[in-house]
Parts: sequence; C-alpha cells; structure tokens
Amino acid sequence: MALTNETVFTWAAPPLKFGVGALEEVGLEAGARGARSVLVLTDPGVAETGVPARVVASLEAAGIAVTLFDRVGVEPTDASIEEAVEFARAGEYDAYVAVGGGSAIDTAKAVNLLVTQGGDLLDYVTPPIGRGQLPTSALKPLIAIPTTAGTGSESTTICVIDLLQQHLKAGVSHAALRPVLAIVDPTTTLTMPPEVTAASGMDVLSHALESYTSVPFDSKPAPDDPMKRPAFCGSNPISDVWCETALRLVGANLRRAVMNGRDMTARTAMTLASTSAGTGFGNAGTHLPHANAYPIAGAVKDYQASGYPQMPMVPHGQAVSVTAPHVFRWTYPGDPQRHLRAAELLSGQTFDARDGADALAGVLADLMRDIGIPSKLADFGYAESDIDTLVTGTMKQTRQLAVVPRPVTPEALAGIFRAAL
Amino acid sequence: MALTNETVFTWAAPPLKFGVGALEEVGLEAGARGARSVLVLTDPGVAETGVPARVVASLEAAGIAVTLFDRVGVEPTDASIEEAVEFARAGEYDAYVAVGGGSAIDTAKAVNLLVTQGGDLLDYVTPPIGRGQLPTSALKPLIAIPTTAGTGSESTTICVIDLLQQHLKAGVSHAALRPVLAIVDPTTTLTMPPEVTAASGMDVLSHALESYTSVPFDSKPAPDDPMKRPAFCGSNPISDVWCETALRLVGANLRRAVMNGRDMTARTAMTLASTSAGTGFGNAGTHLPHANAYPIAGAVKDYQASGYPQMPMVPHGQAVSVTAPHVFRWTYPGDPQRHLRAAELLSGQTFDARDGADALAGVLADLMRDIGIPSKLADFGYAESDIDTLVTGTMKQTRQLAVVPRPVTPEALAGIFRAAL
Repeated sequence: MALTNETVFTWAAPPLKFGVGALEEVGLEAGARGARSVLVLTDPGVAETGVPARVVASLEAAGIAVTLFDRVGVEPTDASIEEAVEFARAGEYDAYVAVGGGSAIDTAKAVNLLVTQGGDLLDYVTPPIGRGQLPTSALKPLIAIPTTAGTGSESTTICVIDLLQQHLKAGVSHAALRPVLAIVDPTTTLTMPPEVTAASGMDVLSHALESYTSVPFDSKPAPDDPMKRPAFCGSNPISDVWCETALRLVGANLRRAVMNGRDMTARTAMTLASTSAGTGFGNAGTHLPHANAYPIAGAVKDYQASGYPQMPMVPHGQAVSVTAPHVFRWTYPGDPQRHLRAAELLSGQTFDARDGADALAGVLADLMRDIGIPSKLADFGYAESDIDTLVTGTMKQTRQLAVVPRPVTPEALAGIFRAAL
Repeated sequence: MALTNETVFTWAAPPLKFGVGALEEVGLEAGARGARSVLVLTDPGVAETGVPARVVASLEAAGIAVTLFDRVGVEPTDASIEEAVEFARAGEYDAYVAVGGGSAIDTAKAVNLLVTQGGDLLDYVTPPIGRGQLPTSALKPLIAIPTTAGTGSESTTICVIDLLQQHLKAGVSHAALRPVLAIVDPTTTLTMPPEVTAASGMDVLSHALESYTSVPFDSKPAPDDPMKRPAFCGSNPISDVWCETALRLVGANLRRAVMNGRDMTARTAMTLASTSAGTGFGNAGTHLPHANAYPIAGAVKDYQASGYPQMPMVPHGQAVSVTAPHVFRWTYPGDPQRHLRAAELLSGQTFDARDGADALAGVLADLMRDIGIPSKLADFGYAESDIDTLVTGTMKQTRQLAVVPRPVTPEALAGIFRAAL
C-alpha cells in the first residue's frame, strides 16, 4: 500500500500594472484587448469617491463606449448579482471593468460568467449547494481595479456570494473567472475612511497569515485526480514568499494608513501588501479566521459598522479579524516556528519558543487595539447563546477547514468563539 | 516643463505547476487546453536524458497524438529555428510542448509565432535589425518544461536568436510568446553534468543579481506612450522580492548541486531559484553581464566547453558570469547598500560600507572558483586585441544598457573586459 503525499503545487496570478497613475491607463489596456464597448461595475460608495469617473474618462478617451453600473451590492447576494446580470444582459459589451472592493470585483466575475455562459448562479456554485457546472466557452476580458487594499479578489479565481434564501455564503471558483489584468493604483485608496482602512488592512493581514500558516502542500495525501487539486493547495514556497512580504508591509504600515489616510507611503505599501497577499493566498488558501467569518457575517442581527453603509452588516475584515488572535493561539502547536516568525515579520520584534502561543496572539491584539477595530464578538451583538450557530456555520466551510494546520473539532471551535466573546 | 518620472511598473508570470512528478501531468494539462495533436520540441542532448520520452508518454497516455522534433539547435540560430519552423509547418498541431533549456523553449516560442502568423524571423525581430511586426492573431498554447534550472525562459516573453549572417544576437519579445503554463519538475535536472549545473546556476544568479541591481523603475523618465513601456522596466518591489529569494537559494545550494548532482534538496532549491529569478527578472531586466555575454558568445573561435556538445561555443551561463565580478565592482557606486545586501544574501555573511565594492565581487569570485567555472576571458581564447570587438558588441545591446545602474561608456566597458582577461 502506497502512502503517497502530494509533491506538486500550483500557482497563478494575473498580469499586474501597479503604481500612481496606473488607473489612467485602463482605456489603453481595454483597447489593446479589442474592447469597443465596456460595462464598468462599481458600488454606490465607491462611485462617490470619483474613482469610477476617472475610469470612465480613461475608457472614453480611448474611444470606447462606456456604460456604468453603480448599483453593485456591498457583500454581494444572489439577488444583487442577479440585478447586475440582468443589466448586463440588456447591453452588448465586449469587456468588463470592475472598480471597488471584493464586492465589485466578485460581482463582475459572476456577471461575466453568467452573461457569456447563460444559466443562473446556482448552476455554477460548488456542489452540494449548487450544480457545479463549468464554463464551456471563453469569457470576456475582465479588468479589475481594486480600491480598498484588502480583498485580493483581483488576483483570484473566486467569487463569494451570500445566498439569501439558504442563509449561506457560497463560492464559485474557476480559472476562467480570474481577471485578465489587475490595475492597482494606490491613489484609489486615499479616500477610504479609517474604519474601512482598518478592516480591509486586517483582511490583507489575514490572507497572508492564514496562507502562511496553512497546512504545507506536501503534508497532505496526493489527489486521486491531479487535475482536481483543491483551489487551496496549502502553504508552499511560492506563496510563502508573497505572504512574508505582505506581513512585513502590513506590520510596518497599517497603523500609519489608518491614522492618516493621506500618508502616500503607507497607502502605497498597504496596496502592495494587498496585491502580494492576493497573489499568495489565492493558491495556498485561507483557513479558520475566514471560515469563522462566514457565520459571523451571516448571522448578524443589527450591528452597523461606522464608516460603512448603514445597514446590519459585519464588514468582512472585521469578521475575519475578531477571532484571529484566538485562532492563532490555538493553531500554534501546528507549527510553532512559523507562528513565531509571523509574529516577528508583523512586529519587527524577535520571539522564541519561550514566548510560545502568546507571541502572535499578542502582536495581533496590539495591532487591533491600535487601529481601533472591534476585538470582541459581543461588539457585533453575539452572546454565549450564539456559539452553536457560529460553530455549525464554520463546520460547513470545508474548503477552508481542509488547510487548517490542526484537526478542527466543534469543541475546539466553540472554545475559540467563547474566547472571542 | 514637467520633469515626470515613471510611476508605474508592470509584472506578469505564467501559471506554474512545480514539484517532483509535475512532468507526468503534461498530458492532462495539454488535454485540458483542447490539444489533440502536439509537437514536442527538444535538443539532442536533452533527448538523451530520457526526459522528453517521459513527456511523450504522458501526452500519449492522455490520448494525444505526439510528434517529437529533437533537433533544436543549442544556442538557437536563425537557421536552426527555420529548420524547426519548416518541420512544424509540415504538420498540423494544436499545441506545442518545449522540453529543455532556453534553446528548446526559445525555439518553440519562435515556431509558435511563425507557424500561426506566417512570415520569417526578421519580420518579428525588434527594429532596426528586424521589421518589428506584432502577432495579429492568437498563438497556439505552448507549455514549457525547463530541464536546466537556468534560463527562466519558461517565464518570459523573450526569444533570443543568433543571426548568423549578421553575426548578432537579437531578440523577439511579445506577451503572446509567454508560455501558457510552466511545468517545473526538479527531477528533470538530475542528469545535468556538473559543468552544465555550474553554468546554468550562474545564469540564475545573474538574472537575479542584475535585476536586483538594475536602475529603479521610478528613477527613469515616464514613457511617452504608456503602452510602450520597455520589456525591462528596472528594479521594482515585486522583482526585488523574487530576486532576493533566488540569491539566497543560489548562495546556499549551487555548490552542493554541482558537487553532487543527485542531491535532491539542492536540485529542488536550484529549480525553485530559477523559477523565482524568472518570475522577477522577466520584468525588471538584466543588464551588463548579459549585455557582455552576447559578444563573448558571438565572437568565439574555437573554445569548446566540457560537458556541452563539442562545437565552438561559450555556454550562455559561462559567458554571463565571466565578467560579473568586474561588472559589480564597477556598478557598486550606483547603489552601495544594495550591492552589499546582495553579497550578504549570497554568502550568508554580513558586510558594511568598509567592505565596499570588494564585497560582492569577492563573493562572486569565491563561488565561481568553488564550482569550477571559467573566470577569465583568456579561458575562451580572448586577448587584449579582442577588446574593441567585445566593447562594440556590448554597446549594441540597448535593451540591457538602458537599465545599467551607472552610465555606460566604451572606456568603462573596455576597463571591465580588460580586468576580466
């Protein structure tokens, strides 16, 4: 009997155009891909910043007909995506440009998929929730312009949707969904309010830290079918480099970007951190803080976040970070050396085994306190009586649970949520 | 008058499949890209290693018809490429697979371009040497399988050709030439003789070191046309990270890989170093050691390298490294801190400004001595009387000269070549 471990990892990322003013080249880039008529997708909050107007101007200057759809749902749902798809189906577009955070980019991925392939969302959502269909013909070019230094969605093949009827977050993932170009311009992040900078920065940190501590790709069994490797392959030497870069940049710059949103050096560094983390985590994978975030966001009753649209919602970056110190205290035995190294990259301090599980947990708690991000589940209105719901919701996130560096049990999860209350 | 510096850099890399056994998945990967009939290109030396036979077996097992062309020229010329193109035009292939070093991968890029687009090589070579035509329709999928841990050609858009009539090396570069997938399997490098391991390892080192010390992207003027940024944009925060990774891996592993070719740890590390350097340098760019290498290889009379096919030839990695210690002694004032840091990454030692230009030059000379690579131009048969020819040849390499971190003069070049005699 052969006990063969995985020996291969995969990695991919979209071409990148990075820097101050890169945004103004979107018209030339769309033109170079043969676009004559483009649909620009954004959400109402981003539309107000004026960034989408710069995108439209650049496209028009290149002689391209532009239609703007500025009603993307924040934290997209099947309903909000369906609205965008109907809008897109009513026109004739040969390329898409997404401007915004993960909401706009994920919505554009879904629109591109559904308009070119037909059908509805559930046809493409991973089974057992959906029917897991694959695209059968080429999608249109999608250019992604992130504005939050957070999501990393510009780098990935993944689109996350809130299924309202099912009370579930679900994902659609396929190589064809990856944008053909990421245009990353730090000037687009200057107008983010401090709370959004803090939450999206913690999302970047979590992408990097979760990928960096995810189970090593070669400590899992080899797949039966090599063409069906999971979307998250676990930590590997290529994602490690990107994640270390992102951790160092976040540790040195997130506080400054929150304190003074017009600190161009800090904004540029955080934008580069987001791109680096996206390029890394899209292949290695996130684990428990992201898995926990789905039920935390999904079961919210009436929490409203300062700096965000006034509706009951836990912003993704807040949902991800609230359990992080407790998660990494618990995963520490999975690879002590790597947890200590992550604490060092984030803090610039040095740690050794005597600091143990407290090192990384402490560094995270200090950073969260300094940037004023909620640090307790109680801040979102959760109590002991909600723990079962949160545990049940997390246990459904099989893609993330597969790369947690320690066996996950409902009891362990309950302990983590309880510590975060 | 606006004196505007460049503010934007670009970066791209092909999807990667890396690890022991990755090679055996080439059939599935080609099939997933719709291939039914594939042309495999390799050179006679690589054919003897048995690696191309593994590639053919994998393709056939996936039900794909395979034709093998094993007469790729080592250091490809217009004549050797023309032969491959004629062979390819006589068949009907819907994908190409290149197996080997830069010779096989570059030849496959040219074959793909010329078969799908028509015309001859000079139609596509950069002006003023060629006519600079661009591809007007889609190329076929090209999967690159490097076997030397050296070239990085699997990552880049560049194909280098020896133009026999003109006694010149010239390049064809376009985004369409980049392979659609790099399959990088360290087991393919196990059969390289020590001399080939040494030379290809120094090529990796040079990619990383030249890109790392190339002029920073934002210390050059902004381009008149942003869509015509040079293929080499200069050092930037993304290439820096990959170059540092490659330097560290080469410094710790090249000696071991040369001394014992079956040291799997060292082979894997050198393979990863090559991929890392390729990911970095393809965008930042090489400078003077590579520029010098063209006339050094081009003007060779009767040098034959041990471990290589017995013909007059200076292997690329030897041509690149022979002037490197002298180049980096001379470029030191361009950015002392970065030269010292490179010496530290390569050696694991620490240096400061008191060590000056000798630090990096010394680290390189020590490494070259230990791995037994030629360290003098005289080893290739060159003498003082050849210096004019070498200087003239180098001054033609405008793409590389544009990113040297110090103004280049014929006098300075003559001094470098004289020091290397």
